[in-house]
Amino acid sequence: MAKLTTRNEDYSKWYNELVVKADLAENSGVRGCMVIKPYGYAIWEKMQAQLDKMFKETGHQNAYFPIFVPKNLFEAEEKNAEGFAKECAVVTHYRLKSDSENPGKLIVDPEAKLEEELVVRPTSEAIIWNTYKNWIQSYRDLPILVNQWANVVRWEMRTRLFLRTTEFLWQEGHTAHATEKEAIEETETMLEVYADFVQNYMGIPVIKGVKSESERFAGAEETYCIEALMQDGKALQAGTSHFLGQNFSKAFDVKYMSKDGKQEYVWASSWGVSTRLMGALVMTHSDDNGLVLPPNLAPIQVVIVPIYRNEEQLKQIQDVVDPILYELKSMDISVKFDDRDTYKPGWKFNEYELKGVPLRIAIGPKDLENGTVEIARRDNLSKSIENIENIVEQIPVLLQEIQNSIFDKALKFRDENITSVDTYEEFKEVLETKGGFISAHWDGTKEEEERIQQETKATIRCIPLNNKMENGLSMISGKPSKQRVLFAKAY
Amino acid sequence: MAKLTTRNEDYSKWYNELVVKADLAENSGVRGCMVIKPYGYAIWEKMQAQLDKMFKETGHQNAYFPIFVPKNLFEAEEKNAEGFAKECAVVTHYRLKSDSENPGKLIVDPEAKLEEELVVRPTSEAIIWNTYKNWIQSYRDLPILVNQWANVVRWEMRTRLFLRTTEFLWQEGHTAHATEKEAIEETETMLEVYADFVQNYMGIPVIKGVKSESERFAGAEETYCIEALMQDGKALQAGTSHFLGQNFSKAFDVKYMSKDGKQEYVWASSWGVSTRLMGALVMTHSDDNGLVLPPNLAPIQVVIVPIYRNEEQLKQIQDVVDPILYELKSMDISVKFDDRDTYKPGWKFNEYELKGVPLRIAIGPKDLENGTVEIARRDNLSKSIENIENIVEQIPVLLQEIQNSIFDKALKFRDENITSVDTYEEFKEVLETKGGFISAHWDGTKEEEERIQQETKATIRCIPLNNKMENGLSMISGKPSKQRVLFAKAY
Repeated sequence: MAKLTTRNEDYSKWYNELVVKADLAENSGVRGCMVIKPYGYAIWEKMQAQLDKMFKETGHQNAYFPIFVPKNLFEAEEKNAEGFAKECAVVTHYRLKSDSENPGKLIVDPEAKLEEELVVRPTSEAIIWNTYKNWIQSYRDLPILVNQWANVVRWEMRTRLFLRTTEFLWQEGHTAHATEKEAIEETETMLEVYADFVQNYMGIPVIKGVKSESERFAGAEETYCIEALMQDGKALQAGTSHFLGQNFSKAFDVKYMSKDGKQEYVWASSWGVSTRLMGALVMTHSDDNGLVLPPNLAPIQVVIVPIYRNEEQLKQIQDVVDPILYELKSMDISVKFDDRDTYKPGWKFNEYELKGVPLRIAIGPKDLENGTVEIARRDNLSKSIENIENIVEQIPVLLQEIQNSIFDKALKFRDENITSVDTYEEFKEVLETKGGFISAHWDGTKEEEERIQQETKATIRCIPLNNKMENGLSMISGKPSKQRVLFAKAY
Repeated sequence: MAKLTTRNEDYSKWYNELVVKADLAENSGVRGCMVIKPYGYAIWEKMQAQLDKMFKETGHQNAYFPIFVPKNLFEAEEKNAEGFAKECAVVTHYRLKSDSENPGKLIVDPEAKLEEELVVRPTSEAIIWNTYKNWIQSYRDLPILVNQWANVVRWEMRTRLFLRTTEFLWQEGHTAHATEKEAIEETETMLEVYADFVQNYMGIPVIKGVKSESERFAGAEETYCIEALMQDGKALQAGTSHFLGQNFSKAFDVKYMSKDGKQEYVWASSWGVSTRLMGALVMTHSDDNGLVLPPNLAPIQVVIVPIYRNEEQLKQIQDVVDPILYELKSMDISVKFDDRDTYKPGWKFNEYELKGVPLRIAIGPKDLENGTVEIARRDNLSKSIENIENIVEQIPVLLQEIQNSIFDKALKFRDENITSVDTYEEFKEVLETKGGFISAHWDGTKEEEERIQQETKATIRCIPLNNKMENGLSMISGKPSKQRVLFAKAY
């Protein structure tokens, strides 16, 4: 197995290689679309299961809406339509036919042209609000708290596995409320759910905030977000929750009869996270040896590798390992005993290191004599010899320790990489030499934001929630500012 | 709530009404595509969870492949391409732009035309085998046992909720093997998994068989199927498992190096079930009062309705019900306590009857005095007064009884509706007056099969596995036949 490119050599290449070599995903025969391989998909399934649980605990139900949006519905909310128009895959025909000039080949049948073209959903507000129109008559029908797990398509010119792909998997919550207050509360609740999930399951620290107007979701009144920092000092938006106001209810004419008999437009939120989180997971924790997975999401939490010369030794090891496997499984710990004789222990060690398995246990004839095993932690690569008697009790403790430790490490890195600057000179220098989040005053205008982006490629990642109020002067225009905002280059 | 059309009045109308009124699904703003509503989706989620468990227990892993198939890949396996060409939604453009003649409107940007059109997957053999090509080099890479949960699109001219929709949800397993024998075994194993699931979870008896050549999946060497019978005497194909031979490995040039160093083409299977099963579920068990759901798949297995005049009575009932709720939940029984004061108990009874909740428990002030509750079974509409002390123990027993009972009822109906006939006259008469499966001799030719279909609309549903060998003469041509096959009109 050829060595991974190191992060220092080329961070971007390291990422691409790692995603493919660790069997997470690969490019497909379709431009910009990825294949999520079984090992990568197993991580995504664990993420889905936990998020789905959290959505249900907060009162949401799942449903499914069509993948296609007729162009005339798609147009209804103008800002949303305008925001996504440039990225839309469009179905124009519903039939292929044999190519009379090329036997065995097919062509699009010109007679099967659709009168109304269908957009492959880049997001589902339009089709869902066109449906909610029929679901909502009275205040009794509210709130509607629905989530959908689905694939979406956004035609991207430059794609990267997980981070930016033409098709991706995600969940999108779409809720309808009687009051503005309730819709805002929902938007905020879901931001908290995302922060909880990303921090406590993915082990990635995030900053909660709101977007500036120009970074807002097309069609939203306010976009809340959680922002994470990758090891190369670039930020990554890990999840968004949008307060949509009455934009979609007005576009689709969705009104309800209030308790006192008035017709009112409905208030809305939408929120989503996607397979992009897989990219964040890889880029936050992994190292030059391969993936580092948080135990809470690792498909294999513990691997046990027997070291043996013959069948008899393997049999002896198996007798010792069997009760351990049984007990770990009964504790809902996902454990694999890899007794394949087609690969050597050293090869297996590398393989599980590359794949980020949190704990590796090796056991050989010497261990049997001494009543020991060797435990290796993936996060800090430490090894220790432990008494086999205590192993079952130790493992859940160690897994929790690793979960905490990788979060703490990422948090420390993140906090060390938030730099306050007061001048544009400093801003540019920090951006080029150190990267990370830069905390600076901004005059609140689109113009200044745009100039900074054009000159430095940094954007405003968010205006942090519960931000400290602090009078200052904007870096560029020198106009007064009441708080700092966070800038960064971003994925 | 307006009464349902009865099955006798108009079976087809009864079905359509029931699906909508019970909140399972509805038509969407997109021709032929449905919205699966939260209650319907909750049933589908239970089906998914159980199937997914069974797939994993038989060694399969999930993965995800692109929704788009470039036309030139789609063409590669000619029979498969020919079979699906007429139903393909085709993406031809990747951008919309503002319509300069109609402000606020969008048009397809003619400059964003794709060089190679993309087919929205009607099934994924092509894109998956194009991927497997890179995954398979040696016998060590085999078998590949992968499943995908996904949406697919087949452009249907006449659609019906769940039974036939342009977009539907399904799972598709795609496996690759070193030998023919192993691929056939896999195909048969998955048919057994489907039969197990449909019979023991959905409560629907099925006949396992293989398709005649003309009903085979396009690109398969053999199609195994499970066939069910609906209450109107029409058959419904509930699942299929295909032995694909080397058709796809040859089309995509997928070879492996065998143990003795030879290059061999890989053997394949694919298998799937879809949201169509939701239609089978409704049509097998439900009655003129609404849905009848098997307890193993019911989102709400038990509903408890308090009957009260004032807050104090409700409070007293709640005190009695709380420990019952707690105990049922700890037994993993899904129970709902419906204490809404916006609806009367009678309204609630109707609602839960319509929605097929297996057990309904009513408890009022009289019950509190007597230490009783009223239990109503949805399947046979029976009611009884039971001692509240025993209720927690009784419920799992009753749920299992209902699960068995609805299966037995469906099995009895199915078996009473398999008729053996020896002449074409009889065949046509039984088909018109009684319906159901007709067991008859057939000469094995496409021509006879086609004539029967054209004249009667009946098709060969399957040649049952482990069929009794019996010499006979074909109904029409009079040629010798070695076994009977099952005909029926079908969904």
